[in-house]
Amino acid sequence: MSKYWNPLLHSIQPYIPGEQPQDKKYIKLNTNENPFPPSPRALEAIRLAAGEDLRLYPDPEGHQLREALASSFNLAPEQVFVGNGSDEVLAFSFLAFFDPRRPILFPDITYSFYPVYADLFKLEYRTVPLAADFSLPVEPFLQNNGGIVFPNPNAPTGRFLSLDRVEFVLKRNPDSVVIIDEAYVAFGGESAVKFIDKYPNLLITNTFSKSHSLAGLRVGYALGNRDLIDGLNRVKGSINSYTLDRLALAGAREALLDREYFEQTRATVMTVREKTAERLVAIGFEVVPSCANFLFVRHRAVLAFDIYRLLKEKGILVRHFNRPRIDNFLRVSIGSDQDMDTFISAVADIVAKPQ
Amino acid sequence: MSKYWNPLLHSIQPYIPGEQPQDKKYIKLNTNENPFPPSPRALEAIRLAAGEDLRLYPDPEGHQLREALASSFNLAPEQVFVGNGSDEVLAFSFLAFFDPRRPILFPDITYSFYPVYADLFKLEYRTVPLAADFSLPVEPFLQNNGGIVFPNPNAPTGRFLSLDRVEFVLKRNPDSVVIIDEAYVAFGGESAVKFIDKYPNLLITNTFSKSHSLAGLRVGYALGNRDLIDGLNRVKGSINSYTLDRLALAGAREALLDREYFEQTRATVMTVREKTAERLVAIGFEVVPSCANFLFVRHRAVLAFDIYRLLKEKGILVRHFNRPRIDNFLRVSIGSDQDMDTFISAVADIVAKPQ
Repeated sequence: MSKYWNPLLHSIQPYIPGEQPQDKKYIKLNTNENPFPPSPRALEAIRLAAGEDLRLYPDPEGHQLREALASSFNLAPEQVFVGNGSDEVLAFSFLAFFDPRRPILFPDITYSFYPVYADLFKLEYRTVPLAADFSLPVEPFLQNNGGIVFPNPNAPTGRFLSLDRVEFVLKRNPDSVVIIDEAYVAFGGESAVKFIDKYPNLLITNTFSKSHSLAGLRVGYALGNRDLIDGLNRVKGSINSYTLDRLALAGAREALLDREYFEQTRATVMTVREKTAERLVAIGFEVVPSCANFLFVRHRAVLAFDIYRLLKEKGILVRHFNRPRIDNFLRVSIGSDQDMDTFISAVADIVAKPQ
Repeated sequence: MSKYWNPLLHSIQPYIPGEQPQDKKYIKLNTNENPFPPSPRALEAIRLAAGEDLRLYPDPEGHQLREALASSFNLAPEQVFVGNGSDEVLAFSFLAFFDPRRPILFPDITYSFYPVYADLFKLEYRTVPLAADFSLPVEPFLQNNGGIVFPNPNAPTGRFLSLDRVEFVLKRNPDSVVIIDEAYVAFGGESAVKFIDKYPNLLITNTFSKSHSLAGLRVGYALGNRDLIDGLNRVKGSINSYTLDRLALAGAREALLDREYFEQTRATVMTVREKTAERLVAIGFEVVPSCANFLFVRHRAVLAFDIYRLLKEKGILVRHFNRPRIDNFLRVSIGSDQDMDTFISAVADIVAKPQ
């Protein structure tokens, strides 16, 4: 608290990222990082870019990266926006497109950054309750709204909403921008990108953090019709002309072009996820069906917080959300085969003992 | 224009960065980049960071970089904020500290991003006219205001305001945050950092772009008392938890630690600046006294825009601002000795001929 703060700062509650304790080396299954290193081609591109030209500003419009993305999604470069992680892209989108005069809508259980953006930009919001099985009902999106946003697959549940339902939401909200946050779509979902030419109200956001093992590089993007991309450029151009450094632009582009590595790593993550799910079911967990690089799980006998705490003592971090409806669940990121063996063996030990 | 835009987007006019034409290789004296490559130690640190750990999120609080900055300025790490270039740091500061109920103040001739931030965050502003010699009078900062910002040295003039005048502004505005934008201070100015413990209303912003030849890396920072730094963290934590990637954090830190390289390169830039100023005076230019890595100049016979245009034809870019009071001036960044020879010879040729 400070007399120098805009009154707004007193009321907002910033997003809290997953913990990153420095006291020892943990097996990190708490922030949905990809267990594979980035594409060797991407790392090489970064090392090449780490030269004399770093004294020069980067391309403020990120043309080469946008062209690679456009080509990858069969869009025009003018339908692509790039930014400093999908968090920044989402923040800019909330500011650019959501109407402060009507409540915006998002699921009650979802990415916890959405209400933070809404509060910062003074947007009212209403939440749409997920069903008991954590599926997302679409009828509530027919109510009057100033914009809609949901992840698909949803986080932290991992559930995917079929594209016919997504299209229903798009079609029935022609006057609202609908943001589909596809951060996890590479792990078994299907992108709504094919709807872009048909629905001018569709904006898709995505990130290289999970799908391309580049959480440390901070590159996200948005796909949508030109009016929306122009709107994002206006916000960006009013805050920071150069949000992506030369290394990030070069590394993300090469990671995207290394399609083979991407296909191979995401397939492995999905295989390990399914194997992990089976092993968790075998020791008494309920596992929500996941199309993401994490599992959302609950044990039938042992409390989630106790499992979280005991795992942490054993050097394994998973994510526990102290929030209504999900406080007895854990979100477990899919790590390497070996990390998941260690995790399963630790968690089996925990749930086998009386607490 | 789009029905999907927040009405705000229609009225804002984004900042326009210096041109970066791609049609041929130019001598770039238009965006104040440093002619020297980044510190070899910084480049090596980046190459080392370009490894497997890029799959992991960076430290959202940038502890190691903040500790290095704190140590360099004799401050506590809690008095340091780091962000994606000083543009982002300035944007966050406008939002965090400036009072929308009273006009904020900045010079009439200054960094042209300030009115853009003000418009985006719906802040009223009044400009303080520079004197005819482009010096900044401080008495106008005694009027009622919701915040004050100016660069020191100023841009695009290069003039430095002595620290006793800066202190006058700080002392007489105990209820307003005063932001001193020190992006160019390394080239002959003096930092107000010594006032931080005395004036809780002081926030200093700076960047690695010019002083450390790292425009392509996007690293800026703010120095101030803990209340102000906490306020910036609240804004950042409501937009994007990780604004600096692992490569930027590592490279900036090492650049800062390579003090010898910094001292040597900035001294050379200042020497070349003084030599260039003398040569410009000799061919009929007025040169504003500069403490920055650029010169602000006007020819007594040839129009600035004509010089700009003819230089561009010869493959040399300088910056011309089509704005009141300064439309007959050019801002010339200090390049390498060799680039400045080419520039002087080209410009001497232009002003020698009748237009």
